[in-house]
Amino acid sequence: MIDRLLPGLAWMRRYDRTAFNGDAMAAVIVTIMLIPQSLAYALLAGLPPEVGLYASMLPLVGYALFGSSSTLAVGPVAVVSLMTAAAVGNYAEVGTPEYMGAALALALLSGLFLVALGLLRLGFLASLLSHPVISGFITASGILIATSQLKHILGIEAGGHTLIEMIRALAAGIDAVNGATLAIGAGATVFLFWVRRSLKPLLMKLGLGPRLADSLAKAGPVAAVVVTILLVELLSLDGAGVKVVGDIPQGLPPVALPPLDPALWRDLLPSAVLISVVGFVESVSVAQTLAAKRRERIDANRELIGLGAANLAASVTGGYPVTGGFARSVVNFDAGARTPLAGVMTAVGIGLTALLLTPLFQQLPKATLAATIVVAVLSLVDLGALKRTWAYSKADFAAMAATIAVVLGAGVEAGIITGVSLSVALFLVRSSRPHMAVVGQVPGTQHFRNVKRHQVAVSPAVLSLRVDESLYFANARWLEDRLYDMAIADKQVKHVVLICSAVNDIDASALESLEALNERLKAAGVAFHLSEVKGPVMDKLKRAHFLQELTGKVFLSHYDALNALDPQTTWDALRGIRPPRSAATV
Amino acid sequence: MIDRLLPGLAWMRRYDRTAFNGDAMAAVIVTIMLIPQSLAYALLAGLPPEVGLYASMLPLVGYALFGSSSTLAVGPVAVVSLMTAAAVGNYAEVGTPEYMGAALALALLSGLFLVALGLLRLGFLASLLSHPVISGFITASGILIATSQLKHILGIEAGGHTLIEMIRALAAGIDAVNGATLAIGAGATVFLFWVRRSLKPLLMKLGLGPRLADSLAKAGPVAAVVVTILLVELLSLDGAGVKVVGDIPQGLPPVALPPLDPALWRDLLPSAVLISVVGFVESVSVAQTLAAKRRERIDANRELIGLGAANLAASVTGGYPVTGGFARSVVNFDAGARTPLAGVMTAVGIGLTALLLTPLFQQLPKATLAATIVVAVLSLVDLGALKRTWAYSKADFAAMAATIAVVLGAGVEAGIITGVSLSVALFLVRSSRPHMAVVGQVPGTQHFRNVKRHQVAVSPAVLSLRVDESLYFANARWLEDRLYDMAIADKQVKHVVLICSAVNDIDASALESLEALNERLKAAGVAFHLSEVKGPVMDKLKRAHFLQELTGKVFLSHYDALNALDPQTTWDALRGIRPPRSAATV
Repeated sequence: MIDRLLPGLAWMRRYDRTAFNGDAMAAVIVTIMLIPQSLAYALLAGLPPEVGLYASMLPLVGYALFGSSSTLAVGPVAVVSLMTAAAVGNYAEVGTPEYMGAALALALLSGLFLVALGLLRLGFLASLLSHPVISGFITASGILIATSQLKHILGIEAGGHTLIEMIRALAAGIDAVNGATLAIGAGATVFLFWVRRSLKPLLMKLGLGPRLADSLAKAGPVAAVVVTILLVELLSLDGAGVKVVGDIPQGLPPVALPPLDPALWRDLLPSAVLISVVGFVESVSVAQTLAAKRRERIDANRELIGLGAANLAASVTGGYPVTGGFARSVVNFDAGARTPLAGVMTAVGIGLTALLLTPLFQQLPKATLAATIVVAVLSLVDLGALKRTWAYSKADFAAMAATIAVVLGAGVEAGIITGVSLSVALFLVRSSRPHMAVVGQVPGTQHFRNVKRHQVAVSPAVLSLRVDESLYFANARWLEDRLYDMAIADKQVKHVVLICSAVNDIDASALESLEALNERLKAAGVAFHLSEVKGPVMDKLKRAHFLQELTGKVFLSHYDALNALDPQTTWDALRGIRPPRSAATV
Repeated sequence: MIDRLLPGLAWMRRYDRTAFNGDAMAAVIVTIMLIPQSLAYALLAGLPPEVGLYASMLPLVGYALFGSSSTLAVGPVAVVSLMTAAAVGNYAEVGTPEYMGAALALALLSGLFLVALGLLRLGFLASLLSHPVISGFITASGILIATSQLKHILGIEAGGHTLIEMIRALAAGIDAVNGATLAIGAGATVFLFWVRRSLKPLLMKLGLGPRLADSLAKAGPVAAVVVTILLVELLSLDGAGVKVVGDIPQGLPPVALPPLDPALWRDLLPSAVLISVVGFVESVSVAQTLAAKRRERIDANRELIGLGAANLAASVTGGYPVTGGFARSVVNFDAGARTPLAGVMTAVGIGLTALLLTPLFQQLPKATLAATIVVAVLSLVDLGALKRTWAYSKADFAAMAATIAVVLGAGVEAGIITGVSLSVALFLVRSSRPHMAVVGQVPGTQHFRNVKRHQVAVSPAVLSLRVDESLYFANARWLEDRLYDMAIADKQVKHVVLICSAVNDIDASALESLEALNERLKAAGVAFHLSEVKGPVMDKLKRAHFLQELTGKVFLSHYDALNALDPQTTWDALRGIRPPRSAATV
């Protein structure tokens, strides 16, 4: 019973000391990594820093109870924080209680939507986000986020939502650059890039094991935090215009319901859907990558419920939308996490931080947090993917480039909607022009092949057409016209046989087109037949009136059709005699 | 040269007296039919009655010059009038110059959009409107339009945009019913229904030829117009509260540019797109039905340009959006129209009416026009289609029912958008779960068939999988998981071969999934192979790094693959020996 309600707890039965040690070690490292990140991402979302800590506590427990990955590390992430800022920014001013309330409502709606998708087993909806669209979206978001943080590093005031607006605002404020802030921000940025690139090899050269070296390198941001806090304290830089985080309330998260305002919910719902889907797609791909390394399995519908539970938890404990983080999960995995208990221990670690350590961050410069964000998100930017996608597929490239352009030029929500619409549209365009072939009989056999590719026998009176796609609304009318034109182009043709061996479905629009085609061919004195109709399709056709109206017949095999309609040709072809009319004249 | 610029004029070369007689006769009948219709549809669109006449003049000439149908009769139609009222009503009050200006701008935008689609040869976009959606849309619009006219027949004031709003408003105003108006409105409605049902058989019984009987029956509305005008005149019913059309300016349409207001254009553009697409789809299906009867051809892209020209003409001559009308085109065809000149002659007929006859309509009761509309649109309502579609396909039924419900409950634009989105979504759902089969070798042959349907030989170490669909974003991740699960379910399996004979494309998302699957299988110690990859797909794969990373090989035929990976099985199968492991255990 517990297993079915809380499948995330199945690991408990075989929990042992080794697993505990791995989980505990991983939790310590992830906690250290998560503290500056959670403060920074709250800043990015336009929320007070403690909200980042709150979003890194109960949500982790929620995921641990319901999720299916043993190592996914949930919490605030960059892209979702940016999307939260974009969504909530439409309804309230940063810093107001309404802004915080909207962020909570957004987490609630995300949570409800994710849980609903999971319970309805609709996880596949996320597959509408094609890979090029997601990849373009992440790259563009990374650029947007990095640009948005420059103002903190330069110590100036600047706004803007699109790339151009931001760059203009930065250019306008460039005279007011605060030297001390810039020194801290630029120093932290350079230091963090150096840590990311060179610290691990250096530590290994110094004789440390690769795992310890890696863990120490991941703790780099903590060093930046500590050093810059000390600098501000010792040199009294807050007097020199260096903006600091300020007072962070000490204590556990406030437990309260998010605003239950139907109008607000209706306004935020589209954003909540986008945030949920983007967060889910990103999270599930990390979880799958890590699971494959241990031959474990990720259940997409349980992932939905796990992430939904995390967001619901965030919404009642003063947080904001969360999802599985990429870097954080890899660190968790590498540091030896074995079970979801690692996540719970991380939550305890963050809880202790919120209870005891927040006064230490009072003098933390915002420029340091901005540097943390810039270094983290620039690793998401992958402009090389544009080139690879261009080489592979122009249609995919178009979807990717459009997503990037619209995210940078008009914002994250417009960008993701553009990308999804465009990839669906391009797919429909492709399948609306299916491959079709005039076929003839391979001499001496009962097989039929494309007249353009094979030496085959064709009947002058019978046009045999094979369509390599299901018949549905997007291709029905086009096929109707093509078939009609082909049938009346040659006055000798008295029969058209549509070979349905590759037709897995005929929808109501296609049925309508077949009926219209039957009428049009009848008016032109040409009989219309079908052959090789699959069982389920035939069952469907029998429920309509089409078969009664059909001027021709339905043949089991195309050989039967040709044998009935023009026996001489099939007989000749079976003996390997090419009929006088060559295939090229069809 | 003229032929290419104005393909609509090709008929001129072989124009003769017979054609002229047919065209002239048809023009007279269509003109008589069009006069009350154009006044009524202008009323439906919330525009002054003369606008209906203006929209029935130059637009017909525009279509005649560029369209491809010889008998399509263009002008104001019920559904497009309703959509115009819905679109323009959002931006201006009925009766204001802004309302008229918005209607003109809407015609202009529709015209530009249709011409652009035609020039870009994008007519196929209209195929996104599946047949059940269009059918549901027309039925629901018919109900909505008929309900909206009841207030004129009852002689009361009532508003509302949705069915429920309208019914509530009618119920609220029911006490104020005007007896004289109701007598005229109900009388005209009953008369028109009788004309439609029984006049033609009656006239034929009286000895008239079927064609003349039909033409007279189609002129029924004119009789209603004449009789009710006389009644109002003779009994001075306008004093008794019967609302009449009132003064209609005498003369030709005003020639002027529509408002060139970018903000208005931007607001109206989505509505213009919907009106254009709905109008085009309706119009082209009438045109095709009629063309098939004379073995003529409709060119969808020329139709777009023809209808676009008609709307551009409407926008500069005081009209509003127009398209090809169903009933009107059938009358035109039946009355003997041979060429587009019939349309030009109709335009002249309406022009003469506007110049000379408008004073006659001053006392025309609005109730008569409402009765004309009710009788015309109720013939569009086809609730039986719901039942037929339910029997044929549940998915199509869902799209149709949703379209009807949303049109009635929330309006025409929301309805059409819902229908299109739902049919696209249902199609994606269907193709996101493609048919796939584990195959084995038919003993004694090199053929491979589904193990569930045939007695075949399978290798214990090689899993052979055939997917019957192109690999693309909506099915990529699902297939990745399915294939992985199937591969690792049986520990004996060392090789997975994906048979790509039915794969017409692999998009970038599917490539990503194949790469991930390759990695996941590699981690599980299983090699991943492909077989029977089509030429164009192989060319594409060669441009990516996938083939270098692939742990297995790409085989030309699946027989080659099995022969290389497990020669014993193929050898046994070729000799017709069933291997020890039965297909059922796969």
